[in-house]
Amino acid sequence: MSKLPGVVVNGVSGRMGQMLVKLVSENKAMQLVGALERSGHEWIGQDVGVAMGGAELGVLVSDNPLEVMAKAQAVIDFTVPAATVAMAELAAQARAVHVIGTTGLSDDDLAKIKAASRHSVVVRAGNMSLGVNLLVQLTKQVAAALDADFDIEIVEAHHRHKVDAPSGTALMLGEAAADGRGVSLATVKDSGRDGITGERKRGDIGFSAIRGGDIVGEHDVIFAGEGERIVLRHMATDRAIFARGALKAALWGQGRKPGEYNMLDVLGL
Amino acid sequence: MSKLPGVVVNGVSGRMGQMLVKLVSENKAMQLVGALERSGHEWIGQDVGVAMGGAELGVLVSDNPLEVMAKAQAVIDFTVPAATVAMAELAAQARAVHVIGTTGLSDDDLAKIKAASRHSVVVRAGNMSLGVNLLVQLTKQVAAALDADFDIEIVEAHHRHKVDAPSGTALMLGEAAADGRGVSLATVKDSGRDGITGERKRGDIGFSAIRGGDIVGEHDVIFAGEGERIVLRHMATDRAIFARGALKAALWGQGRKPGEYNMLDVLGL
Amino acid sequence: MSKLPGVVVNGVSGRMGQMLVKLVSENKAMQLVGALERSGHEWIGQDVGVAMGGAELGVLVSDNPLEVMAKAQAVIDFTVPAATVAMAELAAQARAVHVIGTTGLSDDDLAKIKAASRHSVVVRAGNMSLGVNLLVQLTKQVAAALDADFDIEIVEAHHRHKVDAPSGTALMLGEAAADGRGVSLATVKDSGRDGITGERKRGDIGFSAIRGGDIVGEHDVIFAGEGERIVLRHMATDRAIFARGALKAALWGQGRKPGEYNMLDVLGL
Amino acid sequence: MSKLPGVVVNGVSGRMGQMLVKLVSENKAMQLVGALERSGHEWIGQDVGVAMGGAELGVLVSDNPLEVMAKAQAVIDFTVPAATVAMAELAAQARAVHVIGTTGLSDDDLAKIKAASRHSVVVRAGNMSLGVNLLVQLTKQVAAALDADFDIEIVEAHHRHKVDAPSGTALMLGEAAADGRGVSLATVKDSGRDGITGERKRGDIGFSAIRGGDIVGEHDVIFAGEGERIVLRHMATDRAIFARGALKAALWGQGRKPGEYNMLDVLGL
Repeated sequence: MSKLPGVVVNGVSGRMGQMLVKLVSENKAMQLVGALERSGHEWIGQDVGVAMGGAELGVLVSDNPLEVMAKAQAVIDFTVPAATVAMAELAAQARAVHVIGTTGLSDDDLAKIKAASRHSVVVRAGNMSLGVNLLVQLTKQVAAALDADFDIEIVEAHHRHKVDAPSGTALMLGEAAADGRGVSLATVKDSGRDGITGERKRGDIGFSAIRGGDIVGEHDVIFAGEGERIVLRHMATDRAIFARGALKAALWGQGRKPGEYNMLDVLGL
Repeated sequence: MSKLPGVVVNGVSGRMGQMLVKLVSENKAMQLVGALERSGHEWIGQDVGVAMGGAELGVLVSDNPLEVMAKAQAVIDFTVPAATVAMAELAAQARAVHVIGTTGLSDDDLAKIKAASRHSVVVRAGNMSLGVNLLVQLTKQVAAALDADFDIEIVEAHHRHKVDAPSGTALMLGEAAADGRGVSLATVKDSGRDGITGERKRGDIGFSAIRGGDIVGEHDVIFAGEGERIVLRHMATDRAIFARGALKAALWGQGRKPGEYNMLDVLGL
Repeated sequence: MSKLPGVVVNGVSGRMGQMLVKLVSENKAMQLVGALERSGHEWIGQDVGVAMGGAELGVLVSDNPLEVMAKAQAVIDFTVPAATVAMAELAAQARAVHVIGTTGLSDDDLAKIKAASRHSVVVRAGNMSLGVNLLVQLTKQVAAALDADFDIEIVEAHHRHKVDAPSGTALMLGEAAADGRGVSLATVKDSGRDGITGERKRGDIGFSAIRGGDIVGEHDVIFAGEGERIVLRHMATDRAIFARGALKAALWGQGRKPGEYNMLDVLGL
Repeated sequence: MSKLPGVVVNGVSGRMGQMLVKLVSENKAMQLVGALERSGHEWIGQDVGVAMGGAELGVLVSDNPLEVMAKAQAVIDFTVPAATVAMAELAAQARAVHVIGTTGLSDDDLAKIKAASRHSVVVRAGNMSLGVNLLVQLTKQVAAALDADFDIEIVEAHHRHKVDAPSGTALMLGEAAADGRGVSLATVKDSGRDGITGERKRGDIGFSAIRGGDIVGEHDVIFAGEGERIVLRHMATDRAIFARGALKAALWGQGRKPGEYNMLDVLGL
């Protein structure tokens, strides 16, 4: 009998769900033991690998979380708030690690997840990429170490279809930088420089947004001083990194004390 | 007797003038034969090297251009319009190469310089850096070779004291890109992205301005397509490059046919 | 009846062949009219879209090039030398553009292709990426414009599985740089600096190879002078760019005078 | 009477000494109270500003450390081991902060400095740049957080006159990365890739050295994984940053408990 942790994927038919199924089934440190979808979905009862248009994986898509969770050591969940809250309770009963990438959770949802985390390990993050989470942490730390003699500029690049600027991750990095300096981002944010701007204001945090081609996502945090510069850079070239962070969290949570964690805990920062 | 071209520097007491004197006197392919300042300046009559706070160079600062130009094969001139126009005539008489970095010349001034260039070689450019001029040329060429499947973004970085954005050089690069595509920059310029911008408009040329520390000047022209990117980058780390371009022009003009030239001619592009 | 050029893909079952079928069938400026494989291949007679595991494309895989080429305006061919030489003759008869990405062609093969190009347009290149071909051209040009006061360094980055260094493309860029300077790469190549190297030798062309992760391919050509640097950079993030270059060549060749061309012709450089 | 800490510069006639005098005299948070040189030096008895070829600074160059240190709250010392060991004792007597950038100290020298640090604050570092010290710390931390799924590559660029590769700072970064992973750099170092190298070995730390122009010093620590990359970059554009780190250390040490510190303590990392 295998000792590898059994992992369930919740919401297997979506783009992220399919990516998770693929990565979990390929990962040698875990095994795929369940594939969940909502009742009535056309995939229910089919082999999840076949449903995805590939080879058989030996796991049928189910709409019965209770049954599926009985054999799980972890569940990865990028779905919707209602499904995630329901899953939190089942994961708690099963003492399974619950990795949550779902966004848009209300305070009420969060309270229920917190309650469930008294019995199980919950790892929750808005961005599951190891690299981005690490960059957020480093940014805060460097901003705290250097004073305002170093001007902070955050430069991000994304594909031509992105409709907002700066990116959510750039703003998260800006919050981290402001936090490290003990100021509020709102008071120092300088985005979209154009025209006669005057000299740069000491302490400001600048933002630039590059748009072009199919760039997945690149973020530079620049600390520019007199005679030297530090740049912290993250480049994402494949959206799979968000799924990979979730797998890492599922493994990390095995045997850990119940409670709520985030990706910084997983990274040991 | 030396065969090296004799070079005169006009306006020796300014920051650029001093840099030119230093570089000309150090350059093994030319010799410093004259140092000009306006009448009444305190340096008149002093050795120019001593006046600059360094070693003697054997050339006295003079306010008599007519006399000084008699022995010159070239004059480098980053001064003011009136001085430059007067010099153009003297350079024409002396058949000396006139390298002009002076800005703010009126149409009338330009006409007078053009007239002078019937008898002498005139090299004139808003930016004497070899690298920037080359980048302008490459930008036009690449923009012409690639269609609008490649999004063009121009990103520049300068020190914290710069008061305008984008930089003049960034705009020059944008003009070159628009020219290469056969469009007017005014109709495709997108500078200072911020907030809900919507998707990038096909054919737009985007601009971003980074400000921080003591960055001398960096320009990236990005052509971002599907699955690939070309970046043309120039980094200036020393303001001396503007002076060095002028020296190169002074040498290049020796023995050439009278006429007006720019740095692209000097570079052979 | 459609006026779009009809395109045949040779060798449809390989990784590049499948990518070409996908891109040709999606491209609005052309239509897929033929899919060829060698006799005996299991795909023969099947719809090529279905054989690839996707939707029907209305084109059956055939092992009869003569028949298929009768309706073609272009054929794209990343196969093996024998197949490519045979195809050259058929393309010539059909007056179809023959785009050749096949490598390892002998002098004898090349002579046969040249003979065929008296009747048809042939576009042949070792690397079909627009960006890389453009970079090669720019490198030669900049190396010719700048003298050895600018040190040339070529830095490339590839995934961890690459077994040789520097990359073939880096060497191609090095050849272009040496060519621009009028020297032979063999005499100025400096690759793999390590230990006590002494000062950099004037005129050398340096190479550095970075290996890590799943980097598809990045190349920097650096021209480092006193106080300024020019960097020409290409980043490939998707192997599809090689296929896309071939499609562009197929369209470019329509209505053109018979002869042999390369990607620089297609780019208009 | 001024409350600003009084700073002495040891060895004022050298390139670093002159830079320190200039920066201390310009710094509004401290005052220059002493300028030391060895007995017999031609500057002894002259105003240090005048000796440096500039304006008077009101401080005479002295060869009497005992007398000068009596009024000092800090001494900055980039000299030679013997002078530094002698100074350590005087600084201890004066309870002045002793900032040591001197290299080549023997174990015996270090023991004497340690003894002196029972009475005074000593800050000692091989590289006083804030940025580089920060980068070393970040490198260790990121290497510890990420496993060998992320390939570590260290890329450095320096001017054409540098005679060794990789740079000392690159090796220091490599040591930090190896340390973070709990391995010895000697066992995983891969420098100077060239030719048929085979696939990258898991866990290796690669080094590349770029040489060209007048690049002061640039270091990239790349962590390249599947689908994402983190890059930690430092760019030095002015050698003054080494002096500036020393000034920061001199201020930081004021009122601190006696003992030996390094730049990481100064940065609060």
